[in-house]
Amino acid sequence: MGYFDGIEPVEFDARGDGITSFRHYDPDATVMGKRLEDHLRFAVAWWHGFAWPGGDPFGGQTFQRPWFGDTMKDAKAKADAAFDLFAILGQPFFCFHDADIRPEGATFAESRRNLEEMVDYIGGKMEAGGPKLLWGTANLFSHRRYMAGAATNPDPDVFAYAAATVKSCIDATQKLGGQNYVLWGGREGYETLLNTDLARERQQAGRFLQMVVDYARKIGFDGTILIEPKPQEPTKHQYDHDVATVYGFLKEFGLEGEVKVNVEQGHAILAGHSFEHELALAASLGILGSIDMNRNDYQSGWDTDQFPNNVPEVALAYYEILRAGGFTTGGTNFDAKLRRQSLDPVDLVAAHVGAMDVCARGLKAAVALLEDGELERLRADRYAGWDGVAAKAMLDGSLEEAAALVEERSIEPEPRSGRQERLEAIVNRFV
Amino acid sequence: MGYFDGIEPVEFDARGDGITSFRHYDPDATVMGKRLEDHLRFAVAWWHGFAWPGGDPFGGQTFQRPWFGDTMKDAKAKADAAFDLFAILGQPFFCFHDADIRPEGATFAESRRNLEEMVDYIGGKMEAGGPKLLWGTANLFSHRRYMAGAATNPDPDVFAYAAATVKSCIDATQKLGGQNYVLWGGREGYETLLNTDLARERQQAGRFLQMVVDYARKIGFDGTILIEPKPQEPTKHQYDHDVATVYGFLKEFGLEGEVKVNVEQGHAILAGHSFEHELALAASLGILGSIDMNRNDYQSGWDTDQFPNNVPEVALAYYEILRAGGFTTGGTNFDAKLRRQSLDPVDLVAAHVGAMDVCARGLKAAVALLEDGELERLRADRYAGWDGVAAKAMLDGSLEEAAALVEERSIEPEPRSGRQERLEAIVNRFV
Amino acid sequence: MGYFDGIEPVEFDARGDGITSFRHYDPDATVMGKRLEDHLRFAVAWWHGFAWPGGDPFGGQTFQRPWFGDTMKDAKAKADAAFDLFAILGQPFFCFHDADIRPEGATFAESRRNLEEMVDYIGGKMEAGGPKLLWGTANLFSHRRYMAGAATNPDPDVFAYAAATVKSCIDATQKLGGQNYVLWGGREGYETLLNTDLARERQQAGRFLQMVVDYARKIGFDGTILIEPKPQEPTKHQYDHDVATVYGFLKEFGLEGEVKVNVEQGHAILAGHSFEHELALAASLGILGSIDMNRNDYQSGWDTDQFPNNVPEVALAYYEILRAGGFTTGGTNFDAKLRRQSLDPVDLVAAHVGAMDVCARGLKAAVALLEDGELERLRADRYAGWDGVAAKAMLDGSLEEAAALVEERSIEPEPRSGRQERLEAIVNRFV
Amino acid sequence: MGYFDGIEPVEFDARGDGITSFRHYDPDATVMGKRLEDHLRFAVAWWHGFAWPGGDPFGGQTFQRPWFGDTMKDAKAKADAAFDLFAILGQPFFCFHDADIRPEGATFAESRRNLEEMVDYIGGKMEAGGPKLLWGTANLFSHRRYMAGAATNPDPDVFAYAAATVKSCIDATQKLGGQNYVLWGGREGYETLLNTDLARERQQAGRFLQMVVDYARKIGFDGTILIEPKPQEPTKHQYDHDVATVYGFLKEFGLEGEVKVNVEQGHAILAGHSFEHELALAASLGILGSIDMNRNDYQSGWDTDQFPNNVPEVALAYYEILRAGGFTTGGTNFDAKLRRQSLDPVDLVAAHVGAMDVCARGLKAAVALLEDGELERLRADRYAGWDGVAAKAMLDGSLEEAAALVEERSIEPEPRSGRQERLEAIVNRFV
Ligand SMILES: [Co+2]
Ligand SMILES: [Co+2]
Ligand SMILES: [Co+2]
Ligand SMILES: [Co+2]
Ligand SMILES: [Co+2]
Ligand SMILES: [Co+2]
Ligand SMILES: [Co+2]
Ligand SMILES: [Co+2]
Repeated sequence: MGYFDGIEPVEFDARGDGITSFRHYDPDATVMGKRLEDHLRFAVAWWHGFAWPGGDPFGGQTFQRPWFGDTMKDAKAKADAAFDLFAILGQPFFCFHDADIRPEGATFAESRRNLEEMVDYIGGKMEAGGPKLLWGTANLFSHRRYMAGAATNPDPDVFAYAAATVKSCIDATQKLGGQNYVLWGGREGYETLLNTDLARERQQAGRFLQMVVDYARKIGFDGTILIEPKPQEPTKHQYDHDVATVYGFLKEFGLEGEVKVNVEQGHAILAGHSFEHELALAASLGILGSIDMNRNDYQSGWDTDQFPNNVPEVALAYYEILRAGGFTTGGTNFDAKLRRQSLDPVDLVAAHVGAMDVCARGLKAAVALLEDGELERLRADRYAGWDGVAAKAMLDGSLEEAAALVEERSIEPEPRSGRQERLEAIVNRFV
Repeated sequence: MGYFDGIEPVEFDARGDGITSFRHYDPDATVMGKRLEDHLRFAVAWWHGFAWPGGDPFGGQTFQRPWFGDTMKDAKAKADAAFDLFAILGQPFFCFHDADIRPEGATFAESRRNLEEMVDYIGGKMEAGGPKLLWGTANLFSHRRYMAGAATNPDPDVFAYAAATVKSCIDATQKLGGQNYVLWGGREGYETLLNTDLARERQQAGRFLQMVVDYARKIGFDGTILIEPKPQEPTKHQYDHDVATVYGFLKEFGLEGEVKVNVEQGHAILAGHSFEHELALAASLGILGSIDMNRNDYQSGWDTDQFPNNVPEVALAYYEILRAGGFTTGGTNFDAKLRRQSLDPVDLVAAHVGAMDVCARGLKAAVALLEDGELERLRADRYAGWDGVAAKAMLDGSLEEAAALVEERSIEPEPRSGRQERLEAIVNRFV
Repeated sequence: MGYFDGIEPVEFDARGDGITSFRHYDPDATVMGKRLEDHLRFAVAWWHGFAWPGGDPFGGQTFQRPWFGDTMKDAKAKADAAFDLFAILGQPFFCFHDADIRPEGATFAESRRNLEEMVDYIGGKMEAGGPKLLWGTANLFSHRRYMAGAATNPDPDVFAYAAATVKSCIDATQKLGGQNYVLWGGREGYETLLNTDLARERQQAGRFLQMVVDYARKIGFDGTILIEPKPQEPTKHQYDHDVATVYGFLKEFGLEGEVKVNVEQGHAILAGHSFEHELALAASLGILGSIDMNRNDYQSGWDTDQFPNNVPEVALAYYEILRAGGFTTGGTNFDAKLRRQSLDPVDLVAAHVGAMDVCARGLKAAVALLEDGELERLRADRYAGWDGVAAKAMLDGSLEEAAALVEERSIEPEPRSGRQERLEAIVNRFV
Repeated sequence: MGYFDGIEPVEFDARGDGITSFRHYDPDATVMGKRLEDHLRFAVAWWHGFAWPGGDPFGGQTFQRPWFGDTMKDAKAKADAAFDLFAILGQPFFCFHDADIRPEGATFAESRRNLEEMVDYIGGKMEAGGPKLLWGTANLFSHRRYMAGAATNPDPDVFAYAAATVKSCIDATQKLGGQNYVLWGGREGYETLLNTDLARERQQAGRFLQMVVDYARKIGFDGTILIEPKPQEPTKHQYDHDVATVYGFLKEFGLEGEVKVNVEQGHAILAGHSFEHELALAASLGILGSIDMNRNDYQSGWDTDQFPNNVPEVALAYYEILRAGGFTTGGTNFDAKLRRQSLDPVDLVAAHVGAMDVCARGLKAAVALLEDGELERLRADRYAGWDGVAAKAMLDGSLEEAAALVEERSIEPEPRSGRQERLEAIVNRFV
């Protein structure tokens, strides 16, 4: 008797309810010459979908999943339920941490063996027709051994443990045909600067990342390696604060050509940025990889990881992704938690359906805005002065040369309207 | 009849009131082999000290300075008043923007000539015994021509105008013997991503900075060139968001050896960091230059630029500066605004006296904490495991090698207390 | 030659551009038995529309309106331009502060006479067919005399001055047929608690409000008196922090039956609330009066006062307003600033057109959601247990009685899903 | 073998380390005619001290206390350890939730019996010489039954369950001689307004509070009943948002004479206020009861509940408490969590020692500032204009009368300096 028994596969029905049917997400509909499914590349995350107990700092678990437990049998029941949900949703990808799919063993070796057994089990289910693997990752944050960091831990034993864990997860990702491998540094940071050697910890993190890249390439993993920025929470400060910080870190260690970013909407917000800013910045730096499309409540200063629900916001995100050429190995992952009061199996289905519909609407709006072209024409027009020969020459010249022009030509710049409200009205034609 | 007439020069008096006398700042007292004055290197900023009218978004000016006005006569009266305050405070440095010291002209040429005349005027006063110049800078943000950026403007004419302005300010700084030159990018950013070409604007900013460096070196300016990070306000997003962002920017353009940062406490807070974090990070990246010791109200989301008043916070800041070796060309600038209700001449004096005392107490506490040594011993001890040969070898090895150790040696890391509360108690012995 | 010459009156055209025509706001379209115009009751605010110079803390004015100046001639030119814009937009209401419409005089008497003359001038224009007055108000915040508060000032002379000013503004509002009178307490608060007597200032504010109510009733003003909550900015803390705070204040002084609130979206956000929360709370307390539909950037900690652009957010706001029975004397005011780079006359038109369209879409979505009924059925169903006789009796009984039920009946409550994601999907069917 | 074996009772030693000895807290030292112990009235909280496992949203427990478990034996071991810590610290009070001291039973009746047994056990230890009870409270937030509220739950069964629980906790508090009873409404609020009936939930909360008051008085409980405000976290919005909100709530239900507030520094900050603001406001409204002296990190948007470490902040808090006459039944409770990396028994001791020292320094500074008197003289002087007969008459008069004065007397108010920086310097003489 399955957890989702009685819930039918979700079909597209433009007049449906958006809960048991998709009103907007028709995987086979084509925009810009590509199927919606291939644009959006949806992934369901094992972590918040199946492992999240519904707790918060003041309350224990609210969810009572039949698979909650620490045995391999529980892990397999969880995998069965996951693939049942995948069959209902029909999304093309999933994602996982090692800790999501296998019970922790008494020793590392046992944990590794548990992982290997579950990889085989899940691999079998994938062969039978489930979704593909968007990315795998290692949970280097839940266990108390990581409380002071994984790669950046003051204890070299933890560094080794993290290395062993990541190695086992890259192996698992490779075996399951994963298209990306993600690193999230939730414990790579500090709680108090008073006990922290920032310089040393950054060096450890840099070396660790180089080791990961080298290993992945050595075993022939041809997917993308991704860092997921987040500014804080759980720790007070994290080294992968935001896209700009990760870029500086990659440049410091010469890895900007090897590693990209997995940008989460909620983490962008926690860092004080809009999601579209982080996406546009990553694209402009050549490091945009994939996204986690779970939002933060703007007025809660912690990571609420909610399912997306605001179409105009989502449209602006996909607009930047489309401008950057769309996803290659990346996709739209829902690293999203049900609210802890959403107890029913149908809530887990409905949350994904609603989110996929919001994303489909957002993407279609972004496509329409891009195809309309007015926004891009206005943007290009704003910078058109820089296309002239003299302007280009000035940019290549010296400060004195640029300075000399001002008095020679009596330059007195005349401001032009930035038209923000008109641009917002243009966007609103499409969202 | 001077604005500060009747206010006596401020002397050190440990039993004084901290308003008309220093209770803690004795310039000649020596700690760690250096006079307090030489450790702290205080600077008064012309900008908020003499040009700030006391306005806010909902209110016009509250201050009625006799020198407010647009003529050269007003500018000279302002300089006279400034040097009167400097004589009262006795601080070793001052800082200025071009717009602080000269009236805007009808043309760039006139503005430049005004600047040159005022540089001569101020130079004369410096020769007569006033403070030295910590840094000069250009105001590329107040005038409407800069509303869409200076170096990053969509209009090449504004770029040229900014170049001419910065050139004139570097010239002025050089002539007055300035020890640093600062760039603050309050308009280098955007109000809406909808009209912005991030990639192009970053390239413009990178070129501009290279031009500045080249020009400064060409004319023999041997001071430090500094960028002052700030995340937002006035614009929604600024390219020099925080220290980590500036570092990535410098790396992108190969300027990390040429340019350092001027870190402001208030801007650190607006970016979601502690001041000591930004200082420690800058130090670890080798780009710590100078500081603006004006704080932000933690609960006001705009830049309140208040005079420092919390000794424990200031102590942690100087602790990081001392750990980094102290200031070389940098110093402690008060880029601070009086509250707009602080109308009296004595308020301007008292605000600086209070702030200098807070800094002196903070520095002395930091010195004592450093000389005590327990905090540093505990920090070193926490990472001691990394000093072993095997640990170092692991760090230089491969992921597989590190991973192999775990099963070979049955590593099961044992967490050690991070001792945060004990460390805070140690700090509290000294602040 | 008018400022808006060449801009045609804005008409409804569902296929128009949303900039020079309304795509969604058809004033005569009827929903829920009422014309859109009568539901929305749009008002244009003189303050940010015509008096705002485009400054920010780091930049002077960017706007160059021909009417900027301090003479009565300027004031009349401003009024002419305002009514030109009103004719273009066709909105039914406007709002003003005294300082928006008249130049400050050298004395209070002169300011009052200026106001009276402008009231006559504007009254004439209203008779000629312009919009009606939604509300008038007094500017008790811009002038330096109010820097430490108006009614709450430590100086009784300022209290008197504020009283005289408010009296003149109520008179003006009454004369122009205003439907409400608004009080905004931007200076009623404090910058530092160190110089503030909270208890005394609250008493002054309470007395002042009582005086205002008494005077308005005495002269036969039958409109609604409104307080506009805002937590901070310009001052660090304001006494009218949010709706709940204003309610407590009204209860303290027995004025909860006399005074309602004017809720601004941006101020709700600054206070850490959603706009719909503040509206629902005000409605539940019986004090919902009117709204300012200008939003805040969630990630800028100051009051950005932007025109609304997010339909789903606006829909949730109107949903609460409709649930509360819609506006009576209140309306939808745009207390909104153009972005300071939006320099052109058409920007001022387009910003209002875009905002009115967003509101019309939001209102229509809210109507559809309400008429659909599912959301309200689910809400009622969630509380249905309380409709039983026993539950009602328990609520009227004692703690011991309620407690006794638990052991008597072996009560072990069974949690039910809160369905948040499903409810969000329902909303998304309509927005 | 006890958990704290080997740790000696903490004594006062001005030259000690502030970790194993108090450097500032000498319980018997007298200021303002009262012993420090009687001023500060320290309490240790069972909840964060003994029940907190060191988890966070991304990590399981880090603490391994021998008493963690679900049996009565564990509960007694926990009580033994608690009294061991109390003996080490020597503080005069403790606080508890029911869930802290007894295991949850399979039924309410079993939970109640467990509580009663533990109350007897703890009562025995108190008689043997331990601290007294500052307050008791009920945990109406951890168990999933409360996920949608306790008194405000949509399910009347939960209301009943909450009533039974609170009754049992008031009984326990009464039996143990508690001086206050606290209600914290962490689940009295909402996650989404979409499923919430604000008006109904407020009514339920109001009735519940009335029942509590009636019951407490009926059984002769003569302590103070306290509400602890908090704006959000765990829920998105809580009805006891801050002091002003609680005041409005009490006024609505006529309970402002019966119930006071327990103000927590961290919750003040989460609500956007300073701690001293909340204290001063509560005092001015006559509802200041007690405090939780655990701070929030200003830059973490969730409740970090850290031990206090900043003396100047704490001094301003005690300054308001002293101005309000000091504590009567209230005290200084540490509702504080160790950082989750602080694993050692000595960390729990040291955290309390450091915090008690910080509070003692803060209190002594506040006393000195108050005894110095300059700050209060300046405050009184600022409002002195209101002491005149004419000013008082104006305040009692009408708007027209106040208004008339302005033209009659040609009033033109002259602003006076607010002196903020000077006041901060005065404070800094003492902290
Ligand atoms: Co997240
Ligand atoms: Co994520
Ligand atoms: Co600043
Ligand atoms: Co600065
Ligand atoms: Co506003
Ligand atoms: Co408003
Ligand atoms: Co708390
Ligand atoms: Co508390």
